[in-house]
Amino acid sequence: MQRTVKVEGSKAKQGAYDDMHARHVTRLQIKLDNLLFADFLLKLQRCLGAVCGMQWYAYATLGITMALLSFLMDFSVAKMLGAQQWLYGQLEGNFLLQFLCWTLYPACLCALAATFCQSICPFSTGSGIPEVRTMLAGIDMPLYLSLTNMFSKFLGLFCTLAAGSTVFLGKVGPFVHLSTMFAAYLDNMFSLLQGIKKEKTSDMLVVAAAVGVASCFGAPVSGVLFSVEVMGSHYSLRHYFPCFFSAACGALTFRFFSVWSGDMETVQALFKTNFPSALPFYPLEIVLFAFLGLLCGAVGCCYLFCHRWILQFTKTNPLFIRMQTEKGLYSAGVVFFLACLTFPPSTGQYMASEYTTKELLTSLLDCRQWSSLSHNASVHQELSLKWNTSEMPLLLSLAFFLLMKIWMLVLACTLPLPAGYFMPMFVLGAAGGRLLGEGVAHVFSTGVVFGHHWDSVYPGVYALAGAAALSGAVTHTLSPALLAVELTGQFSHAVPILLATLLANGLARSGNRPSFYDAISINKKLPHLPSLVKAYPQISLTTVAHILEKDSVQLQKAAGPEEVRHIVVASVQLQIPVVDSEDSQILVGFVQRSELLKFLHHCKTQNLQQQMDDVCCIQPVSSLLSPSSTVDMAYSMMSVLELQTLFVADKGKLVGCLTWSKVMNVCKIFMHIFVL
Amino acid sequence: MQRTVKVEGSKAKQGAYDDMHARHVTRLQIKLDNLLFADFLLKLQRCLGAVCGMQWYAYATLGITMALLSFLMDFSVAKMLGAQQWLYGQLEGNFLLQFLCWTLYPACLCALAATFCQSICPFSTGSGIPEVRTMLAGIDMPLYLSLTNMFSKFLGLFCTLAAGSTVFLGKVGPFVHLSTMFAAYLDNMFSLLQGIKKEKTSDMLVVAAAVGVASCFGAPVSGVLFSVEVMGSHYSLRHYFPCFFSAACGALTFRFFSVWSGDMETVQALFKTNFPSALPFYPLEIVLFAFLGLLCGAVGCCYLFCHRWILQFTKTNPLFIRMQTEKGLYSAGVVFFLACLTFPPSTGQYMASEYTTKELLTSLLDCRQWSSLSHNASVHQELSLKWNTSEMPLLLSLAFFLLMKIWMLVLACTLPLPAGYFMPMFVLGAAGGRLLGEGVAHVFSTGVVFGHHWDSVYPGVYALAGAAALSGAVTHTLSPALLAVELTGQFSHAVPILLATLLANGLARSGNRPSFYDAISINKKLPHLPSLVKAYPQISLTTVAHILEKDSVQLQKAAGPEEVRHIVVASVQLQIPVVDSEDSQILVGFVQRSELLKFLHHCKTQNLQQQMDDVCCIQPVSSLLSPSSTVDMAYSMMSVLELQTLFVADKGKLVGCLTWSKVMNVCKIFMHIFVL
Repeated sequence: MQRTVKVEGSKAKQGAYDDMHARHVTRLQIKLDNLLFADFLLKLQRCLGAVCGMQWYAYATLGITMALLSFLMDFSVAKMLGAQQWLYGQLEGNFLLQFLCWTLYPACLCALAATFCQSICPFSTGSGIPEVRTMLAGIDMPLYLSLTNMFSKFLGLFCTLAAGSTVFLGKVGPFVHLSTMFAAYLDNMFSLLQGIKKEKTSDMLVVAAAVGVASCFGAPVSGVLFSVEVMGSHYSLRHYFPCFFSAACGALTFRFFSVWSGDMETVQALFKTNFPSALPFYPLEIVLFAFLGLLCGAVGCCYLFCHRWILQFTKTNPLFIRMQTEKGLYSAGVVFFLACLTFPPSTGQYMASEYTTKELLTSLLDCRQWSSLSHNASVHQELSLKWNTSEMPLLLSLAFFLLMKIWMLVLACTLPLPAGYFMPMFVLGAAGGRLLGEGVAHVFSTGVVFGHHWDSVYPGVYALAGAAALSGAVTHTLSPALLAVELTGQFSHAVPILLATLLANGLARSGNRPSFYDAISINKKLPHLPSLVKAYPQISLTTVAHILEKDSVQLQKAAGPEEVRHIVVASVQLQIPVVDSEDSQILVGFVQRSELLKFLHHCKTQNLQQQMDDVCCIQPVSSLLSPSSTVDMAYSMMSVLELQTLFVADKGKLVGCLTWSKVMNVCKIFMHIFVL
Repeated sequence: MQRTVKVEGSKAKQGAYDDMHARHVTRLQIKLDNLLFADFLLKLQRCLGAVCGMQWYAYATLGITMALLSFLMDFSVAKMLGAQQWLYGQLEGNFLLQFLCWTLYPACLCALAATFCQSICPFSTGSGIPEVRTMLAGIDMPLYLSLTNMFSKFLGLFCTLAAGSTVFLGKVGPFVHLSTMFAAYLDNMFSLLQGIKKEKTSDMLVVAAAVGVASCFGAPVSGVLFSVEVMGSHYSLRHYFPCFFSAACGALTFRFFSVWSGDMETVQALFKTNFPSALPFYPLEIVLFAFLGLLCGAVGCCYLFCHRWILQFTKTNPLFIRMQTEKGLYSAGVVFFLACLTFPPSTGQYMASEYTTKELLTSLLDCRQWSSLSHNASVHQELSLKWNTSEMPLLLSLAFFLLMKIWMLVLACTLPLPAGYFMPMFVLGAAGGRLLGEGVAHVFSTGVVFGHHWDSVYPGVYALAGAAALSGAVTHTLSPALLAVELTGQFSHAVPILLATLLANGLARSGNRPSFYDAISINKKLPHLPSLVKAYPQISLTTVAHILEKDSVQLQKAAGPEEVRHIVVASVQLQIPVVDSEDSQILVGFVQRSELLKFLHHCKTQNLQQQMDDVCCIQPVSSLLSPSSTVDMAYSMMSVLELQTLFVADKGKLVGCLTWSKVMNVCKIFMHIFVL
């Protein structure tokens, strides 16, 4: 670079000829610099490659970067929330200003986020997990992996989270989506570095799903379990070790940042609890945990029903559709309404609205028993600050919180913002569990029931079990059970938590009810077959013959340039099937679109009338379907073998071909037939 | 039954006619009883089915029964070990008798187990996990699922475990195998109860793998992770929820038994530790954990190399082959030799041979620092009982234990007994980790290193990380990291343990080295392709055309009875491909063997010359391979789509068909080509 500057310095002094000469020198210099850079890259690559394959660096980079992003997000959101709290405190005494500060702050943020996302990239709204599931099944959705999307999702999510517990939305879903976007980008970059051209990035995407969860909470194992669960039908063991590796990198980095920022003394859990491990629970309490699980399952079903209803309502109600055209205004309106309800001097005082989501969870997981604490004046003071502002008893306040927040959350789900819906369910579950736990503790500590006198019942454990059970029931997953353990860093209660989650899941899954993500997939018409099959099991038995289009694209072996040109223009398919002859229809193999273009170019330049098979390489078809195989089978084969096109032949004769876009269309058609 | 007895009572008094009449009545009675029983079953089934599908009862039964078996095994083994210890103590003073008690007891038990297993069911020896992996891939191996095998494996395992820490073998592997055997039996029983005929039992087998681990240690999550890892190439999400459910049932029951038997006050972890959770480790200790992981990886590689060498040696050395014909005698000899080495007055005093495996692990995971304890006289006494009999320092004793036990374990692996090889590696890893941990604690507590004065370094945590890392490296799995957490019930150290396990795995997996189970699979010539591919990656790229037999079985559509009879006699294949005609070879579909038999019967009774397609139903082929597809692809398709036969066609013409038995043969051929 120094030499280039020197040459440019001399150029200014001399005439036109010199100028040209100098430009030439500059160009050579840049070429040399490029060469030097390429050489450096090559050396770096060789040096790194000596330790392990380049993909491992990509996995590590993914984990570390996502953890950094997650930490930055948490850090800046905490600052924003602190600023609002400070302002609200400063305005003490002026009711109107306080009201405006409480309501306009989140409303403006959400309006900003909605407008921003709408104008930059409309695909960045929502959770992102349904889209990630679809992409993981093998369907290309480049719009959901663009850098623009990443940028707008990150900023939008920041605004949503900064709006605080009024909007009460989380960060897991968008983080999983962000992680996949970054993974796709990273994959391209590393492929360029290695000088190879990759066709699929699915490996990185699966890893990204695990990293998304792991870096969000510093919880590696539940991240990996999530990546297993998110895979619809089959999980390839090839991804298992990379998922763990990347998730561990992410979780470790996330926790190290907490240490370095001074939040914690050492690498610890995010919501560290202090449940005693000597006698974590009485054996008979298992029955109560099972009951809690069933209860959470039932509540989860109700919530899912409301959610499906509102999804349908927003799509069909004309007034609502008109309102949704102005996304910024709509968001501002809804958030203003929610903020009015949570305003502390109004109903907010009964639902601890001054807590942030993190504080809410910490207070709910408190290992002490609230009902016994409330007799203790000093601790009562501390708790009553948020949970017990008025004269309403603590437990009634908890029940009110639960009732209000559920329908408020259903409403918040209609907001066109990048936001996660997992964490709110986790907190609501914790509140439900706490309510039951406090009741149990009260009953068993005051009187002797069933001949037992239990004085060490911990309502916090019930809160944790409830959190895992409700969030598991709503998403039809079991990883929340492990997440609950990883978040608190205590394993002694793993078995009752797992039991509650299992039972809640069992109840929520019964009767072919779609999960939260399934409902969004169906509502957004995403081509995710497992979601559809869950709602309508009969679909999986439909034969391939039913969904094939009659006029399929095909070429005969001896096709001339005219036919080839026609096909290239008429179809966008990447692999075109080749048959023996028009009459026999015997499938011979397939030819790549690029080969056909080469053939056309060849014919044009040489001005020859050649046959396609003289020039193009006809590749053999490695696996075939028959018209009688089911859609489910076709889907499994395409996902597992990672095929983009699957040919269908009957007795050797080509019947048609199945591509992901066709499967997508079929899904859409099915979705039109079955209304949610 | 009472009525039957009455009838039989009257029969004795009367004559021949009455006798016949009575017999008729009895038969009617039995029929009525059967009907009543069937009616009862139907009612029971309807009653149970109202809550959830019958398969869930099967899963719960599986979990609960295996936990019961596991508990019974532990309980009776503890009694047997206690008896030996008591006898050994009683003989104090008499050196010869003590020697005989120490050596002959395990030698006799192992000789008994070996002879018993050899005579009842030779397939019951070894770990069983390699066989389970093969069955889970879809290959039928009924001999490994028989009730005889289950019986002999259970008794053999009992003898092996009762032989104590001299033989130093574990119970996980055989328990996974026992669990699959019981699952297969249960599956048949429930199918009978429901009156349906099931073709495959793979669902239950996957669940059984999870239950095997979960019920062995009361560790549900690592059980599920194990079942994911054991699946070679793809894990079907269909199994995920059942696995968790059954594993949770197993783990909960196992822990409840511990409570009821009075071992524990409540449902707790098996090896509960008391590491402080306030400051579990200093952030910089992460580097030491990473180093420990790499160290364990290297040790694991050495161990695997020795293991592969001895596997090869036992198969090729003529002397050894002759010795192995007398399995009982061979076992007795080897165990006698091992017992001589561990005899406390001999070298046994330097390797804590008086501890049982469980006590060994408990002492290694102790949260206190041994080097600081040894200054404290009373605690020193307690520890020195086992670890420090002589004047040898504790750490030297630990190093000696490690060195001796590794080669003794390699030798013990040649014993023809049902035994697990996971737990010994876990304990050895714990010893290695303890050694490093004690060293680190000693260095950092005495002096100030790098400007830090660390006084709360816990060697027990290093032991735990070492245990997970070494057992993970040897088996190429990550579930040991979670198992370490579940066994101790403490989550605060999960991240460093996971890190150590990941690094150890990374080192052990590099360079296409087969894992412990892979080596056994290859050695036993089990048709498990993923094992082979790990050792010889080039195999996966072999095309199907290479492995197809030239003369494949086929029928033409218009085949007569003579041809059909010929095929039925010549082949045992269940699905026979049907071609259009001998000349065209166009694959039309396939016909079931049972249909062909029906056709032959039809022709015989009606004495007609009919064509096959008039009578038999020709089923369409749902998926096809081409000769150019790879073996890996064929394997994936057969496992994922759960096919027993896959037809191979080229341009619609039948080329051959691929069955599991053919894949098995191919694996065997490959194994002959590549010597381990």
